[in-house]
Amino acid sequence: MGYIVKRLAVLGATGSIGRQTLEVIDALPGHFSIIGLAGGWNTTLLAEQIEKFQPRFVFHQETKTPPTTTHHYEFMSMEEMAHHPEIDLVVVATSGRWGLKPTLEAVRAGKQVALANKESLVMAGGIITAEAKQNGAKILPVDSEHSAIWQCLEGETSRPAKIILTASGGPFRRYFPDELAKVTPEQALKHPSWQMGNKVTIDSATLMNKGLEVIEARWLFDMHFDSIKVLIHPQSIVHSMVEFADGSVKAQLGKPDMRLPIQYALSYPERLANPHLPRLDWENMEELNFEPPDPDAFPCLRIAIEAGKRGGTYPAVLCGADDIAVQQFLAGQIKFTDISRLVEQVLDEYKATTRPTLEEILAADDWARERVMQLAAGDKS
Amino acid sequence: MGYIVKRLAVLGATGSIGRQTLEVIDALPGHFSIIGLAGGWNTTLLAEQIEKFQPRFVFHQETKTPPTTTHHYEFMSMEEMAHHPEIDLVVVATSGRWGLKPTLEAVRAGKQVALANKESLVMAGGIITAEAKQNGAKILPVDSEHSAIWQCLEGETSRPAKIILTASGGPFRRYFPDELAKVTPEQALKHPSWQMGNKVTIDSATLMNKGLEVIEARWLFDMHFDSIKVLIHPQSIVHSMVEFADGSVKAQLGKPDMRLPIQYALSYPERLANPHLPRLDWENMEELNFEPPDPDAFPCLRIAIEAGKRGGTYPAVLCGADDIAVQQFLAGQIKFTDISRLVEQVLDEYKATTRPTLEEILAADDWARERVMQLAAGDKS
Repeated sequence: MGYIVKRLAVLGATGSIGRQTLEVIDALPGHFSIIGLAGGWNTTLLAEQIEKFQPRFVFHQETKTPPTTTHHYEFMSMEEMAHHPEIDLVVVATSGRWGLKPTLEAVRAGKQVALANKESLVMAGGIITAEAKQNGAKILPVDSEHSAIWQCLEGETSRPAKIILTASGGPFRRYFPDELAKVTPEQALKHPSWQMGNKVTIDSATLMNKGLEVIEARWLFDMHFDSIKVLIHPQSIVHSMVEFADGSVKAQLGKPDMRLPIQYALSYPERLANPHLPRLDWENMEELNFEPPDPDAFPCLRIAIEAGKRGGTYPAVLCGADDIAVQQFLAGQIKFTDISRLVEQVLDEYKATTRPTLEEILAADDWARERVMQLAAGDKS
Repeated sequence: MGYIVKRLAVLGATGSIGRQTLEVIDALPGHFSIIGLAGGWNTTLLAEQIEKFQPRFVFHQETKTPPTTTHHYEFMSMEEMAHHPEIDLVVVATSGRWGLKPTLEAVRAGKQVALANKESLVMAGGIITAEAKQNGAKILPVDSEHSAIWQCLEGETSRPAKIILTASGGPFRRYFPDELAKVTPEQALKHPSWQMGNKVTIDSATLMNKGLEVIEARWLFDMHFDSIKVLIHPQSIVHSMVEFADGSVKAQLGKPDMRLPIQYALSYPERLANPHLPRLDWENMEELNFEPPDPDAFPCLRIAIEAGKRGGTYPAVLCGADDIAVQQFLAGQIKFTDISRLVEQVLDEYKATTRPTLEEILAADDWARERVMQLAAGDKS
C-alpha cells in the first residue's frame, strides 16, 4: 500500500515549535520531505538542521555569516517558500509578527498551513481567514487547545454550541493581586505543565496567552466571543472541549507535549503511531479539576477578549503592547502586574482603524510597541 | 430549508429506554414519525402511547386483553416491523433475548438500528455484525458508553488503538468481598448516578454490565479484547474514551441521562437542540476521578470478558446464567456474591458450540438458565 509523502516548508525551524516539528518528522521516516527550512539567528543549529534534512530552499535571518554546510541549498525568502508550487504544507512556527506575511502568502497560494504563530490570526484573522476561504487553503492549528477543538469537531456535521478552552492557570493560580506584584521573571518562567518559549510562558502566567487563544478560536472556528469559554484545568490533560446543541461534550486529552498537536497537523487526516509520543497512564491518573478563572487577579484575559470584540486594529495593538511589556518585565524593568496595566492603558489611548489593511495592522502594532516603551520609561523616571 | 422526517419503529416502547425514546421524539416535533410501536405487558401505558403517537403498526405481548384505544392500528410482530419497507430506523429497546430476532431482521433488511438491547450483540454479535455488513445496515449504539465511543470515532480515518470504557463502579465501589456478601437487593438497586431498569442496575453493581459492554464494544468497533480497557469513573461524566495511534485521547462527556445517547442515535449525523436535555455546569464541576476496577471484589467483569474471548455460545451462556442469577438475587433466594459464583460455575460446566446458529445460541441460553435454577435450588437444600 502506497502513501503520499507531504512536501513541507518549516518556517521558524530553530525555535521551540520548529525544533519539535523536526523531531516529529524525524520519528516518522518516509512520510514527509522537507523542501524548505527557515531559521532565525541561531545559525549553528540551522546549519545542523540543513545537513540533516537537506532542504532545497533555506532562509536565514543572518546574512553576513550564513550557515556553513556541505549541503548546497538555494537561499529563498519565507514568503517565496510559502507559495512555492513544490510545497504542500507550510509550518508557520516563526514567533511574533514575522509570521503574518508568510501565513498570508501560504493561504493565498491555497496551501495547507500548520499554524503555530498566534499573531497571524490574532492580528489579521479577518484577512487571513477570508483569503484562506477564497483560495481553498486549510489552516491546521498547532496550538494544543485549538488542535483539541479541531479534533473534537472532525466528522461533526452541525456547528458547535460552545467552545471551552482550558488553561493550566500558570504558576500563579490562586495568587492574590498583591502577591502577583512581587513575582520575579524567574518564578514566572517556571510553568507547571508546559515547556515553551519565554514569551508564551509569561503570557501563560498572565493569562494573556489564553486571551489571544480566544481571539484565534473566534477566527479558526467562526464562533462568537460569547460562545467561547475559558476554564482553568491545572493538570493540563484535557486540552479543550466542544459542547454541541444536544448538550454532548467532546474533549481531547493527552500528556502536555506539543509534539502531539504538531504531529496531528502534519499527519491529518491520518493518525500515525509514534513511539516517542507520551501516553496517558490511566492506572495512575490523578484527578482532573476545573474551575473558572479569577478575573481580578488575571485581567489580561478580559483585556484581550475586549480587544478581540472591538476588532479592527485593536488586537494588533494588544499584541504589540503585550510583546514589549513582557520584554520589559523579563528585563526587570517593570512589575508582573504592570504588564496588564500598561497593555490596557495603551489600548485605551488608541484610536482604531476598522477594516484595516495588513500595513495598517503592522503600523498599529508598531505604535503600541513604541507607546509601551514610553510609558514604561515614564514609570521609572 | 427542508429536512427528512425519519420513520421509526420503537420496540420495547413501555420499558425504561422505550419511554425515554418517546420523550425525546416528543421534544423534537417534526423530525420523526412513529410508524410502529411494540410494548410488553404494560398494556395501559402502551394504550396511552398509541393514542399519542398514532402508529400504523402495533405489537403487544398481551393478546387476551389488547390495549383499548380510539386509534385504529394493525397488529404486527416485532420481526415484521423490523423489516417493513416503510420504516427507516428501528429502535431495539426490548430487554433480554427478545431483542435478538428483531435486531437480526432489521440488519438483514439493511435498516438503521438504534440498538439498546445488550443481548443482541453479546449473544449473537458475530451473526449480527456479519449480516449488517452484508446488507448495508448501520448499527447505532444507544448505550451511553458505546455512544461516547462512536461520537469520538466520527470523522476519524484511522482505527483506534484502544477503547476505554468507563464505569461508575456502582453503589458498592470499594466494598470488600465479605461486605458484598451481605448487601440486599434494596441496596443494590440504588445506583449512584444512573436511572435504569432493575436488571441493568444489578449488573452495574456486579460490574457484569461492564463485562457485557466490553463484548458489545468488541463487535461494534471490531476491536480485540486486549485493546478494550475498563476504568472506574465514579462521577459518570466521562462516558467513555478512545485512544489513537498517536497517543491522542478523545472523550465524550455529559450529565448521566440516557436521553442524550438515545437522541444522538435518532438524529445522527445531525445534532438537534433539545431544551429538556441537561447540560454540564462547568462553573460548579466537581473533580473527575479515574481508577482501575478491583478484580477480586467484582469478578463478573473478568468472567464476562473470558466468556467473550472464548466466543461461540459462551456469551449466550453468560447472559442466560446472569439473567436468572440476578432474578434469584432480587427474589432474595441467593446472596449478591452468589451471582458471580453461579455464573462462573455454569460457564465452567458448559461445553461450547463454535460458529453457532441463532437456534444454538438460544438453546445455550436456555440451558444456562435451567442450570442456574438447579444450582440455586441445590444451594438452599
